[in-house]
Amino acid sequence: MDKFVLDERLARDSVLLVHLGLCELRLINDCRWPWLVLVPKRPGVSEVFELTPLDQAVLTFEQNTVAAALKSATGATKINVAAIGNIVRQLHVHVIARMEGDANWPGPVWGHGTAAPYGADERRALQQKILEALHS
Amino acid sequence: MDKFVLDERLARDSVLLVHLGLCELRLINDCRWPWLVLVPKRPGVSEVFELTPLDQAVLTFEQNTVAAALKSATGATKINVAAIGNIVRQLHVHVIARMEGDANWPGPVWGHGTAAPYGADERRALQQKILEALHS
Repeated sequence: MDKFVLDERLARDSVLLVHLGLCELRLINDCRWPWLVLVPKRPGVSEVFELTPLDQAVLTFEQNTVAAALKSATGATKINVAAIGNIVRQLHVHVIARMEGDANWPGPVWGHGTAAPYGADERRALQQKILEALHS
Repeated sequence: MDKFVLDERLARDSVLLVHLGLCELRLINDCRWPWLVLVPKRPGVSEVFELTPLDQAVLTFEQNTVAAALKSATGATKINVAAIGNIVRQLHVHVIARMEGDANWPGPVWGHGTAAPYGADERRALQQKILEALHS
């Protein structure tokens, strides 16, 4: 069996928060929105329905746990969850905290403008907050 | 318990294909992309993680069954799956067939231009094809 290797673009655009059972949980380095991605550690998969039924169930669990934690950590108006992958084909699921009036609200985040990287302290504080919500 | 009533905007923008166990499966009336929405028939729910764990599992099953059928019915390059809901808050999951070079490819479909309604024959033919793929 092939080994899972994280896509180069995902690696460049995000930092690892924690390894969950199935997925790497990563934070996109763009302070315009608190934006997580879950990447199932399975090689050669592009669509959720290509995962085994068990992996699909585990992904649902991890995704919903992360979404609830992100909502509680940020007080988001709405969580946006999506598996798109038109550009990066390695399966990855976006979980994004949206606030009324944020960049491009109520439109989508994908393809909007250019990323605004976090300052190091700001990023560490957000990571801490999300991990605490995830473990509470 | 409140009764489930389909959101007015979803009702206006889409037509019913079939009732699944949990969801209404509907086709968005926009011929730029083969675009389905799954609407869980549960009142007062905005986020996937607000569903009961059983409903979350059933939604995953219905969503992935529909996504695989849409891919096989259309020969899509990539299926886009998303629960956004920044505008319409009633929980609904988009399942969209994307083809290389389609409108706004590889960007997202949400908020792009204005809907181009189907002709009646064209819509019936697509519905038929999707339902056949779903039942095969």
